[in-house]
Amino acid sequence: MSGDFPSGSVWLVGAGPGDPELLTRKAERLIAAADTVFYDALVGPGVLALASPDARMVHVGKRSGRHSRAQGDIDAMIVAAAQSGERVVRLKGGDPSIFGRSNEELAACHAAGIAVRICPGITAASAAAASLGLSLTLRGTARKLTFVTAHARAGEALSLDWAALADPYATLAVYMGKAAAREVSAQLIAHGLPVDTPVALVENASLANERRFVTTLRLLPLAARSALGDGPALLLIGAAIGEAVSQPTQARAALTA
Amino acid sequence: MSGDFPSGSVWLVGAGPGDPELLTRKAERLIAAADTVFYDALVGPGVLALASPDARMVHVGKRSGRHSRAQGDIDAMIVAAAQSGERVVRLKGGDPSIFGRSNEELAACHAAGIAVRICPGITAASAAAASLGLSLTLRGTARKLTFVTAHARAGEALSLDWAALADPYATLAVYMGKAAAREVSAQLIAHGLPVDTPVALVENASLANERRFVTTLRLLPLAARSALGDGPALLLIGAAIGEAVSQPTQARAALTA
Repeated sequence: MSGDFPSGSVWLVGAGPGDPELLTRKAERLIAAADTVFYDALVGPGVLALASPDARMVHVGKRSGRHSRAQGDIDAMIVAAAQSGERVVRLKGGDPSIFGRSNEELAACHAAGIAVRICPGITAASAAAASLGLSLTLRGTARKLTFVTAHARAGEALSLDWAALADPYATLAVYMGKAAAREVSAQLIAHGLPVDTPVALVENASLANERRFVTTLRLLPLAARSALGDGPALLLIGAAIGEAVSQPTQARAALTA
Repeated sequence: MSGDFPSGSVWLVGAGPGDPELLTRKAERLIAAADTVFYDALVGPGVLALASPDARMVHVGKRSGRHSRAQGDIDAMIVAAAQSGERVVRLKGGDPSIFGRSNEELAACHAAGIAVRICPGITAASAAAASLGLSLTLRGTARKLTFVTAHARAGEALSLDWAALADPYATLAVYMGKAAAREVSAQLIAHGLPVDTPVALVENASLANERRFVTTLRLLPLAARSALGDGPALLLIGAAIGEAVSQPTQARAALTA
């Protein structure tokens, strides 16, 4: 099965939400086969430990608000490693195709004539829903699922179509949503979403330090300010999230015991 | 790590898009530990082969348009198996939290006091994007990603908010989209999306019989009618999909060689 990873080629690999058990089996194989692994700040030690002891591990340190390397530098490093004949894995938190800024690295590889492929990963919304024990879609009630990111460039306002997002028959997932919690709450309420719409905040989904809170759209800013640490946080908003509070504590207690 | 799967409990497990390598490591472990596995038509043999030879494998045969068992019967079978002390895995194609109708099974377990948890899976949109080698989101161009399903109950029209879906700055994923391709195309064009908006059709994403086509919104109905078989098909619509056609064939050829 290693015929898909020749020398001098690149895989953009989804590292999933953090728990190394939530990697795909394919990601595990590719990481183990890599000569060089480029990874973000959001990829945890449990995932990195799956690389070969001989692999070169390069932290390219992208993290919300403090990019330690410019994207162009990362692109150049990936291309140079592949051109030197290495098998290159570029590990990205979550799924490379969802808010992973993969297209810049894909374009750099294409421009250099380097074979590049994508191995998908579990995106944060799926992991958070699993942790909460609920479905993001509900027949008739939550017919649409929308992902946006609240991560704007420094000094930029969020440019989101709030009227379209304030849909009572949808579930909205806001990636990197902690800092924007006040604006998300105010805008969705201003555009007609009921103030008691259920909202879940999930920080560090799937990791040992995961924190989960279920609140309402009105109380979201308070919850984001008081309840979360500084890990990446996802907001899940909509009627479907109400199912998380209707679960009997009996069954939940049995699972956490 | 098997402390999270006691006798008499249930895991709803995402089987991913089909390729057994795209299962999570956690799903692999849970499937191997199960006494009984209930599975859908869309879960393939490569995934089922990971179960213990001693496990009871129960095909509950849900497939678009021909449900061989009513949901209530499936709920009752899952609860009965757990009540008899078995470790139960309910395998669902893709991610249980995205168009997986998990809430009915969750509610049945909760009502019976049975511990039930969710293991996330790779959803079809992630797998299709990986196969196409593109990102579903693009900074500035595709800021929003929306999932809908075009699977209506027999005789029902699709009830989707087309005006909100016809967003030129979004990527739209339409699950089970083949039969509705004509309506999707007509409605999105009627609501203002350009006729040359790129569209990808991906059938059997990640499997050996995967088929991929990139076309335009105008030509979508023709492509769906002429190019696809009868496997589950996903439509991906939006400017981000245009990146799939701009890749140099040189790099693509190197990967398929």
